[in-house]
Amino acid sequence: MIIDIINKKRKGEILTKEELEYAFTGYQKGLVKDYQMSALLMAICIKDMEEEEIFHLTDIFLHSGDILDLSFLDGVKVDKHSTGGVGDKTTLILGPIIASLQIPFIKMSGRALGFTGGTIDKLESIPGFRVDLSLEEIKKQAKEIGLVVTSQTENLTPLDKMVYALRDVTGTTESIPLIASSIMSKKIAGGADKIVIDVKVGEGALLKTDEDAKRLSDLLIKIGKKYGKETRTIFSSMDSPLGNAIGNKVEVMEAMEVLQGKEKGVLLDTVLELGSNLVAMAKGITEEEAKKMIIDVIDNGKAYQKFIEFVTYQGGNLEDFTIHAKKIELKAEQDGVLEEIHALSCAKYVFSLGAGRREKKDKIDYDAGLVLVKKEKEMIKKGDTIAYVYTNKEDFSENCKGMFKIS
Amino acid sequence: MIIDIINKKRKGEILTKEELEYAFTGYQKGLVKDYQMSALLMAICIKDMEEEEIFHLTDIFLHSGDILDLSFLDGVKVDKHSTGGVGDKTTLILGPIIASLQIPFIKMSGRALGFTGGTIDKLESIPGFRVDLSLEEIKKQAKEIGLVVTSQTENLTPLDKMVYALRDVTGTTESIPLIASSIMSKKIAGGADKIVIDVKVGEGALLKTDEDAKRLSDLLIKIGKKYGKETRTIFSSMDSPLGNAIGNKVEVMEAMEVLQGKEKGVLLDTVLELGSNLVAMAKGITEEEAKKMIIDVIDNGKAYQKFIEFVTYQGGNLEDFTIHAKKIELKAEQDGVLEEIHALSCAKYVFSLGAGRREKKDKIDYDAGLVLVKKEKEMIKKGDTIAYVYTNKEDFSENCKGMFKIS
Repeated sequence: MIIDIINKKRKGEILTKEELEYAFTGYQKGLVKDYQMSALLMAICIKDMEEEEIFHLTDIFLHSGDILDLSFLDGVKVDKHSTGGVGDKTTLILGPIIASLQIPFIKMSGRALGFTGGTIDKLESIPGFRVDLSLEEIKKQAKEIGLVVTSQTENLTPLDKMVYALRDVTGTTESIPLIASSIMSKKIAGGADKIVIDVKVGEGALLKTDEDAKRLSDLLIKIGKKYGKETRTIFSSMDSPLGNAIGNKVEVMEAMEVLQGKEKGVLLDTVLELGSNLVAMAKGITEEEAKKMIIDVIDNGKAYQKFIEFVTYQGGNLEDFTIHAKKIELKAEQDGVLEEIHALSCAKYVFSLGAGRREKKDKIDYDAGLVLVKKEKEMIKKGDTIAYVYTNKEDFSENCKGMFKIS
Repeated sequence: MIIDIINKKRKGEILTKEELEYAFTGYQKGLVKDYQMSALLMAICIKDMEEEEIFHLTDIFLHSGDILDLSFLDGVKVDKHSTGGVGDKTTLILGPIIASLQIPFIKMSGRALGFTGGTIDKLESIPGFRVDLSLEEIKKQAKEIGLVVTSQTENLTPLDKMVYALRDVTGTTESIPLIASSIMSKKIAGGADKIVIDVKVGEGALLKTDEDAKRLSDLLIKIGKKYGKETRTIFSSMDSPLGNAIGNKVEVMEAMEVLQGKEKGVLLDTVLELGSNLVAMAKGITEEEAKKMIIDVIDNGKAYQKFIEFVTYQGGNLEDFTIHAKKIELKAEQDGVLEEIHALSCAKYVFSLGAGRREKKDKIDYDAGLVLVKKEKEMIKKGDTIAYVYTNKEDFSENCKGMFKIS
């Protein structure tokens, strides 16, 4: 039976809801083997899926575990997602902004594998910060301060996690139907009413072309609609890092700078675009109006205040929040224009310093990080500091040539 | 690294010899996981392979184990292969014919999974017949009577076996490059100099169209040439059974009938076509001349005599070779023309009687079988016997309607 389903997709035919359920729910139950699922995933990657199939698959992922019920909270619940990005700390900035505008922001995150830690790991780099909140604690905190970021206690979309892990090791990540159903099942299971998604496009991203990004965006919006969840998307490049900091502590510190209105640029622009969409949807106002409200809470300090309140509530001690590692200057070896800051090379470099984890059991060095001093297209002189490196390693790799292109 | 290789094939690019070796030899060593190999196989199925890739893959399979050295035998060594077929007992008939023409025929067969047993199982249905010959015994028998059929003692193309088993359960059997490299690596490892291959075409076969069959045929011949092994192909349909008997004992009995010149028809025609190609290659004569020689050894009894000599030499006792199961008549339920005898339905029916094995450990009922009495396109009357069933089962399925189409 599973072979018939695989064969059908191999020939490019459309799978029914029953067939998708047989294959995917069967995989969750262990009846379909991983080598059969990977063959099916490859056939899906190459032969694609129709919209109906994608809707069915999203539903199967969604109902493979718990669905978070946030109805104990008044008002519209919002969530955001990004399809990857080096130096992306927008959640750390958006959360306090949104909450300071009286829109509840409750996020359950998993621990990511990757070049740097996920949002949860970044927050854990603050001494004392607790991420293992009980459901009771989450409810109390949400009601009192409107902002919670915690590790995932509920069993949300476990099948998506299984399939994602398999895709990761079988060359089957680049499939728009599989990406769309994975993202939306997770967001819907997380209990949000309004969702904004940052779709990354470019050489280093899963989506290489504007056409692919557009197709994914349309699908995300359509899937959201099916479940009555208004969904919007923004597009951004992931060829260069988002902001100046890449690492764990350094990213939290940069988020704090932005919340205090001390840093402008692409990172703030991205936060404004994501945030104004979320606020507009939540309050039923225009994006322009929403954007003004966001700028206001940054300018009048309310957003930063909310960040402090939130960190303190979850046990974090910002007074002890410093980097103890040694700080090294990366200097330009020639005069010229800084043509390109290559995001993927920066990410790999920071990973080599210990900022991320390859396997679940790996320990992260929260201190390790990179802070860019110069921006793309800036004129630089030989000997100028391009970036600072924070590292606890004695023998840290100096192989950082690929990160900067000077012409 | 393996993910890069899978991704490359997913995009339809050509894999180098090094990449194929990394993936396939890595799979044999356990470094590449089965879920990664199945994803790669699916990508190969859909995106296809160029000739160079197929040559490399054949070579990798070939050198994954032992290569049989038949140089102890004088003269040209021949082998035959069929890409599947219900009721195909051509090896049992060809072996004695070829050997009686002073061309050595040494075949090492594996035990097949399938609707009926493989050649080895069919021979084992003769009381006393030994299939576990040592290499010394094989050499002695080959020199003395020129004909040996034995189970595989040497470790021939083990990687092909691993990949074949995986393809079987992952919907990746229908790939001409994978079929070609599998067949040819096996045949070359078996030590033959001249090879003839019966390529089955049709709805029930792996190859559905004449175009596919032609492509496979061209590939087989080209791969053979690479190794200095002259290869010829014949095409045949597998929509109806080859001959009248399907089962184990009944197929050996039918082979004996053909060898005694008592049965004509499609089975004999196929044997003549395969045989005349083999004999023509081995002796450097025309197919017409070869065909005459074959008809001669059937007519003068030498081929049948060789069969008796061969079976007796390997311990078989033909005097005790009878079917003990009950014999049941399948009768026509209406007048009309026997439009079609459906090979696959017959095979499944015989399998349900116990004639084959689904798993290695399954035990075969050698008695179980089906013998067709009527031929396709024959006029029949209600109550006529269409076929005999041999079965030891009390509750044998009478669900045999799909086998015969009467109009």
